Amino acid sequence: MADFTIEPHLADALGRLGEAKDERLRELTAAFTRHMFAFIEEVRPTEQEWLAGIEFLTAVGQECDDKRQEFILLSDMLGVTMLVDYLNHGSAPGVTETSVLGPFHREGAPKLDNGTTISQDGIGEPVVISGRVTDEAGAPITGAVLDVWQTAANGLYEVQDDSQPDYNLRGIFTTDGDGRYALRTVKPVSYPVPIDGPVGALMTALGRHSYRPAHVHFIVSAEGYKPVVTQLFTDDDPYLRSDAVFGVKGSLVVTYQRGAEEWRVTYDFGLERAA
Amino acid sequence: MADFTIEPHLADALGRLGEAKDERLRELTAAFTRHMFAFIEEVRPTEQEWLAGIEFLTAVGQECDDKRQEFILLSDMLGVTMLVDYLNHGSAPGVTETSVLGPFHREGAPKLDNGTTISQDGIGEPVVISGRVTDEAGAPITGAVLDVWQTAANGLYEVQDDSQPDYNLRGIFTTDGDGRYALRTVKPVSYPVPIDGPVGALMTALGRHSYRPAHVHFIVSAEGYKPVVTQLFTDDDPYLRSDAVFGVKGSLVVTYQRGAEEWRVTYDFGLERAA
Repeated sequence: MADFTIEPHLADALGRLGEAKDERLRELTAAFTRHMFAFIEEVRPTEQEWLAGIEFLTAVGQECDDKRQEFILLSDMLGVTMLVDYLNHGSAPGVTETSVLGPFHREGAPKLDNGTTISQDGIGEPVVISGRVTDEAGAPITGAVLDVWQTAANGLYEVQDDSQPDYNLRGIFTTDGDGRYALRTVKPVSYPVPIDGPVGALMTALGRHSYRPAHVHFIVSAEGYKPVVTQLFTDDDPYLRSDAVFGVKGSLVVTYQRGAEEWRVTYDFGLERAA
Repeated sequence: MADFTIEPHLADALGRLGEAKDERLRELTAAFTRHMFAFIEEVRPTEQEWLAGIEFLTAVGQECDDKRQEFILLSDMLGVTMLVDYLNHGSAPGVTETSVLGPFHREGAPKLDNGTTISQDGIGEPVVISGRVTDEAGAPITGAVLDVWQTAANGLYEVQDDSQPDYNLRGIFTTDGDGRYALRTVKPVSYPVPIDGPVGALMTALGRHSYRPAHVHFIVSAEGYKPVVTQLFTDDDPYLRSDAVFGVKGSLVVTYQRGAEEWRVTYDFGLERAA
C-alpha cells in the first residue's frame, strides 16, 4: 500500500462517495469534505483542539429540543444563515430584501382588520406601521397577506414567556383594493439571543455581545408571487450595526417618526412574480 | 447602511471576532467561518438543504451519550480524524505510524506476562504477536508498555457486549531487557461501525459500506518517549483498502503466518524520544 499522505488521503475520501445514488448528496458531501480538509490543513488543530470541537458540536446538538434549535443559532451567529439567505434570494429592484425567519414564528396567528393592534397586553409605546404591497413595477397587490410577529417590551416572544397572552404580538393582515395595509403594535426592543447554552458560551469567549437590534418580523405573500420573509429594523437602535445574527440590511431599516399619540412607520413591500 | 453583499458580510463576520481574548479561539473561528463561506458559495444550498444539514447535525449530537460518540464517528467517516492524526504525528523513519484511537479503549486492563493470551473466552483462532520496541535508531527499549485491545470473534468489543467477560481481549504487556514483547490473542475480524444512527444513514445514502478491516489496537509508551496510538491490520482482509474510517496505513499492515498451532505475527514498534 502507498504511504499515507494528505493528497492521496483526500482523493480516497472523495473517491468513496462515487457510489451515492443521490448526485446532489454526493456533491454536497464531497464539497464539505474538501473544505473541511482545507480548514484543517490551514489551522492544524492539535488533537485536544479537535476533541474540543467535537465536544462543542455535541453540546450544541444536545441543547436542541422542540422549543430551541441551538444549531440554527450557531449558523446564525457565524453569519452563515444570512449567507444562505442571500444566495437564495439576492436583491432585485422593486423587491423587498429578505432576512432570517428566526425560531419564533407560529402558524395560526389571528386574522385582524387593518388598523388593529397586535398588542394584547398594551404594554409598550404604541406604533402604527402602514404602507403598500406592490409588484416589482410598483403596481398595488390586493389581498396580499402580512404575517407579523415581534417580542414584547420585556424582550421575549410570547412562546418564551408564560406571562403573555397566547398569540400576543402576532397577527395577520390583508391589503385592501389599493394594496394598502396598516397595523398597530408597540415599539419593538432589542433583546439577546439565548446565551445560556454552548453557542452563548462561544459568543462570550469571542468577546461578542448577544443582542439583536429591535425589529418586527414579516412574511409577506400573495397568490402568484414569491413570499418574502423579512424584518424591519428600528433606525435608532444601538445594535443596528452589530446584530448578533447579521440580519440587518440597509433597505430594511425604518424610521420611527414621533407622532402626537403614537410612533409612525411607513414601509412599502415589493413582491416578485412567481416563475 | 451599505447594501448587503457577500464580501462585506464576510468581513463583518470576521471583524466581530476581533475582541476575542483567546487568540487561538479567534483564529480557529475565523478560519472556520471563511471555509464555511467558501463551502456555501460553492454549493449554493437551498434553504431546505441547509435546514436538512442543521437537522442532520442536531441528530448526530443527540445520538451521543456516555457510550457512543456519533460526532467522532462522523469525523472518522469523512476522513477528517485521520487528517488531524497525520498532521499531529506525521511519519518519521524508525517511528511507528499512528492510527485512530477509536472509542473503545478502556483504562485499567490487566497487566500480563509476555506470552499470555488476552482472550478470556478462548473463542477464535489463536495468534501470537511478538517483536521488539526500539528507539528511532533501532536500539531496544526495556520496560516499554503495550496496551492492547481488540474485538471478539463476533465483531464486538467487550464494552459493547454483555456476554463477554470483563476486560476480555484487553491486556498490558511490558518489554524485557532486549526490548522484546510477546502476546497471545485470537485473530481479529472485520466489523461494522455502528450504523443505526444518523451517520450510518448518511453512509448508506452515500452507498458506502460500514466495515473496518480486522485490526488489533495498541498504545505503546515508554518513559522519555512519545507514546504511539496505532493499530495493526490483517493483510488478507477484504476491507483493507476501504476502511470505513480510513485508518489503514501501509506500514501498519501485518502478515498473519499460519503456524502448526497458531497464527504468527511479528511486528517491531519504534518510538521517538520526547523533546
